[in-house]
Amino acid sequence: MFESAEIGHAIDKETFEAEVPALREALLEAQFDLQQQGRFPVIVLINGIEGAGKGETVKLLNEWMDPRLIEVRTFDQQTDEELARPPAWRYWRMLPSKGRMGIFFGNWYSQMLQSRVHGLFKDAVLDQAIGGAERLEKMLCDEGALIFKFWFHLSKKQMKTRLEVLQDDPLHSWRISPLDWQQSQTYDKFVKYGERVLRRTSRDYAPWYVIEGVDAHYRSLTVGKILLEGLQNALNRPKINPDSVNAAPLPSSVDQLSLIGSLDMTRRLDKDDYEEQLITEQARFSGLMRDKRMRKHALVAVFEGNDAAGKGGAIRRVAAALDPRQYSIVPIAAPTEEERAHPYLWRFWRHIPARGKFTVFDRSWYGRVLVERIEGFCSTADWMRAYAEINDFEEQISDARVIVVKFWLAIDKQTQLERFQAREAIPFKRFKITEDDWRNREKWDDYRAAVCDMVDRTSTEISPWTLVEANDKRWARVKVLRTINRALEEAFEKSDKHDRKMKKDKQ
Amino acid sequence: MFESAEIGHAIDKETFEAEVPALREALLEAQFDLQQQGRFPVIVLINGIEGAGKGETVKLLNEWMDPRLIEVRTFDQQTDEELARPPAWRYWRMLPSKGRMGIFFGNWYSQMLQSRVHGLFKDAVLDQAIGGAERLEKMLCDEGALIFKFWFHLSKKQMKTRLEVLQDDPLHSWRISPLDWQQSQTYDKFVKYGERVLRRTSRDYAPWYVIEGVDAHYRSLTVGKILLEGLQNALNRPKINPDSVNAAPLPSSVDQLSLIGSLDMTRRLDKDDYEEQLITEQARFSGLMRDKRMRKHALVAVFEGNDAAGKGGAIRRVAAALDPRQYSIVPIAAPTEEERAHPYLWRFWRHIPARGKFTVFDRSWYGRVLVERIEGFCSTADWMRAYAEINDFEEQISDARVIVVKFWLAIDKQTQLERFQAREAIPFKRFKITEDDWRNREKWDDYRAAVCDMVDRTSTEISPWTLVEANDKRWARVKVLRTINRALEEAFEKSDKHDRKMKKDKQ
Repeated sequence: MFESAEIGHAIDKETFEAEVPALREALLEAQFDLQQQGRFPVIVLINGIEGAGKGETVKLLNEWMDPRLIEVRTFDQQTDEELARPPAWRYWRMLPSKGRMGIFFGNWYSQMLQSRVHGLFKDAVLDQAIGGAERLEKMLCDEGALIFKFWFHLSKKQMKTRLEVLQDDPLHSWRISPLDWQQSQTYDKFVKYGERVLRRTSRDYAPWYVIEGVDAHYRSLTVGKILLEGLQNALNRPKINPDSVNAAPLPSSVDQLSLIGSLDMTRRLDKDDYEEQLITEQARFSGLMRDKRMRKHALVAVFEGNDAAGKGGAIRRVAAALDPRQYSIVPIAAPTEEERAHPYLWRFWRHIPARGKFTVFDRSWYGRVLVERIEGFCSTADWMRAYAEINDFEEQISDARVIVVKFWLAIDKQTQLERFQAREAIPFKRFKITEDDWRNREKWDDYRAAVCDMVDRTSTEISPWTLVEANDKRWARVKVLRTINRALEEAFEKSDKHDRKMKKDKQ
Repeated sequence: MFESAEIGHAIDKETFEAEVPALREALLEAQFDLQQQGRFPVIVLINGIEGAGKGETVKLLNEWMDPRLIEVRTFDQQTDEELARPPAWRYWRMLPSKGRMGIFFGNWYSQMLQSRVHGLFKDAVLDQAIGGAERLEKMLCDEGALIFKFWFHLSKKQMKTRLEVLQDDPLHSWRISPLDWQQSQTYDKFVKYGERVLRRTSRDYAPWYVIEGVDAHYRSLTVGKILLEGLQNALNRPKINPDSVNAAPLPSSVDQLSLIGSLDMTRRLDKDDYEEQLITEQARFSGLMRDKRMRKHALVAVFEGNDAAGKGGAIRRVAAALDPRQYSIVPIAAPTEEERAHPYLWRFWRHIPARGKFTVFDRSWYGRVLVERIEGFCSTADWMRAYAEINDFEEQISDARVIVVKFWLAIDKQTQLERFQAREAIPFKRFKITEDDWRNREKWDDYRAAVCDMVDRTSTEISPWTLVEANDKRWARVKVLRTINRALEEAFEKSDKHDRKMKKDKQ
C-alpha cells in the first residue's frame, strides 16, 4: 500500500514554479465557486508519518487558497465538555458548513492509530473503530460532503533523516510529537496498523491518497492537484445526492395487521389510580436521577406521536419530577439556516446531554423518516438510508452510556378530531392547533405506515421504541414515566454488573 | 431595602387555589404569544437568600408554563473551555434567543456576591462588577431583551428555621449550599452586600423585585403575577426599541480636516525593502506567538477598510507567518437566522479565542456603526449606543488579557476605481467584485464620515485603531504586521511587570 510512496518522487524547482501560478488560480476559483454554490462542505483529513510534511502542506494550502474559507481544526487533548459527551461529539461540533472547507488534524484516524500503537486496545477494537469511521464518512458523503483523506508517507530511513533535520530547526524543535517516533518500533507499528486502516477505509466515496513526503515540491503539487480535481468534479456534478435507491422500496403489509393496529386503545386509568401512580413514579424518577450512578450516564428521551396525542402534557409530568436545573427540553421545529447548512443529525448532536444530565427531545431525528418522508422534504434515498444512520447514531451515544428511551404516543382518529375541536375552543390552547395539523390529519394512513416502518427498523435492543396507548392521557403519562424508570434501573444494574466484573478481573 | 420582605406576607390556600388557574392560563397565553411574535428574549435572574424558595419557584414556573419554551441555566463551576475565555463568555453562550425564556441561576450577581462575602475582593472591585452588570443589562434591554431580577428574601430568623426544615427533608438534604449559611455572619454579609448590589442595579429597564420567601403561596403568586404583567406589557408594546435618541446627532466637522484626510497616502515600499521587512516581521510574529507568555493571552485582530483596500491580502500575509492550527479567520457577512435572534454582539462573542489562540475578524462588530448605520439596517438609536457598547465589549475582553488590534485600511477613491476595474478583468478575482461594491462606492463620503466618527469614539487606550495607508499594498501589509508585533510585545512587557509586582508584593 505504501510502496509507491517510498521510491523518491521529486519535482525540480523550475517545474514547480512554472506550475504553481495556474494551480493557485484554479484552486482559488474552485474555492469561491464552492462558497457561491453553498451546496456542500469539504472535509480534508490529514494523517501519516511524523515529519512527512503534514503541517507544511496545510500551511501552504492556506497560502495558496483563501484562508477565510478554510477552518483548520486540531483534536488534541479533549476538553472537559468533550469528555462528558460521546467521543464523536467533538467532531460534529467542528464540522464545516456548506460552502466551507475544514482541515482536520488529529482526527478519528489518529486517535484509533495511537491507541492501537500504544496497546490501549487490540485489533478487534481497532476494527470497531474502523467500522465507525466508515459509517460516519458514508453518512457525511450521502449528505453531500466531499471528503479527502491524505496519508503523508516516509520510509523509515527517510523519516529518521527528516527528524534529525527538524530537530536542528529552531522553527520546528518546539513541536511535541504525539508518538515517540525516534523509536524504530513505533514506526513499524504505525505503518502496520496504518496499512490496516487505509485498506479498510479507502472507499469510492472517500478514498485515501498516499503522498510521499520527502520532496516538498512533489508533495505540494500532488496534494494541490488532487484537491483541485476533486473540487472541480464535485462542483460540476449536477446534483450531490441523486435520488436513486438500489434497494427495493419498502414492502407494504400483505395483511391488515400492524404494530400500531394491535395496540389496545381502550387502556385507561381512573383519576385516583392515576394520581397515586403518577406520584409514585415521579418520586421514583426523582430518586433515580439523584442516584450517584447517574453521574456516569446521561438520559435522552424522545417524544414522537400523532398530533394532539399529548406529548406536551407527558413531557410536563416527566419534568415536574425534577429540579429544572437537571434537564433541558429541546423542541424540534423546522431547521434554522445554520442547521440546514450541516448534515441533518448535526442539530441533534448539538443537544446531546453531558454526563449526569437529561435532555427531552420534543420531536426528534425521526422527523427524517416521518414528516420529511411523507411531505417529500428529502429524497427517497435520503430517508431510506436514515434508518441505518439513526441506528448508528443511537449506538454511538449508547456506547457512551447515554440511556435512550423513545416514545410513540398513539391516539385513534376520532380522539384526535375531538382534541382538535376542543383546542380550537379554548383560548390559551388555540396556539396548539394550526392549518398544518388539519392537513397532516388527511395523511393519517401515510403516517401510520411510516410509523410502522420506523418502529420495525429502529426499535433495537439498545434503544427500543415504546408504543404508548394515549387515548387516555392518564394511562399514557404513567406508562411514559414507568418506562423511563425501568430503563434507568436496567442501565444502573448493568453498570453495577460491569463494575463488579472489572473489580473481579483486577483481583 | 429588604424591610417589607420580612413582615410575614402570606396567602391562604383557598385564595391561592382560586387564583392559580386564571394566572396559569394567562401565563401560557403570554408565553405562546412571546414565541409567535419572536421579537425579544426574556431573561429571569434568580438570586437571594438560601432556603427562600428559589429552586421551588423555578420548578413551579416550569409546571405552570410550557417548559419547552424555557431554558433553565446554572452557572456553577466553570468548564475549562469557559476558564480559557473572558468571564462573560459563559453567559453570552447561554442567552435565550428571541421568543424564548432563559432562567439564570448562579448568574453574574451570585458570582460577585460570593466573591465579596468570601473576601476575595473589596468594595472597589465589587463596584466594578456592579458597573459591568449594569452595562450588560442596559445593552441587552436596548437590544430588546426583557429582564426580570428576583431577590428571594428571608429574615435571619426565618432562614434558620427554614434551613432546619430542609435539612430533615430527604428530597433537599442532598443540596450543597454555596455559602455556609449556617453561620450567622454569612447571612449578615450577604444581606449587606446584597443591599449594595440591589441599590445600584435596580434600574427602570431592569428593576429588582424583592420577594419574601417564607410563604410558598405568597411567593409563587407574586412572582407569577410580576412575570405576567411584565410579559403582557412588553408584548403589547408596539415596538421594542423606539428610535428616539436623546443625545444630539453627531456633529459634522466644521472644517475640512479629518483623521482619514490627514493620512499620507503616498507612503510606499519598494519590492526589495518589502520582501526584507515582510520576512522580518513575519518571523518576529511567529516567534512572539510561540513565546510562552502568549499562553496567558489571546489575540484578536480586526480588519476593516474601504472595499478593495486589500484586507484579504493583508490577512493572508499575517496568517502565512503561523501554523494554521494557531489561528482562525472569521469572515463577517450578513448575520444568520440564529445570529439575528440574539443581540448583535452575540455572533462575535461566539468566536472569541481561547487563551493562546488568535482570531482574525475580516470585518467585525464595527459593521454596526459603518454599513448598518449608512444603509439604515439599524435605527439611529441603535448605532448611537453601539460606540459605548463596543468599548465595553473590548474592555471586557482586554481585561481577560485578550490583546485587541484594529485596522482601518484606507485607500483613495481613484485607487479603488482602478482595483475594481482590475478585478473585473481577472477571472479568479471576479468573485471579489459585486454590484454592492459599486453601490457602496457612491456613498464614499458617508462612509468617510462614519469612519471618522468610529475612530473618534472607539480608539481607546486599551484597543486603539491603527489607520493604514493602503494605496500601496506592500506598505500596508508591513505596517499591519509591525503593529501586531508591537502590541504583543507591549502586552508581554506589561504582564512581566505585573508578575514582578505580584511576586514582590508576596515577599
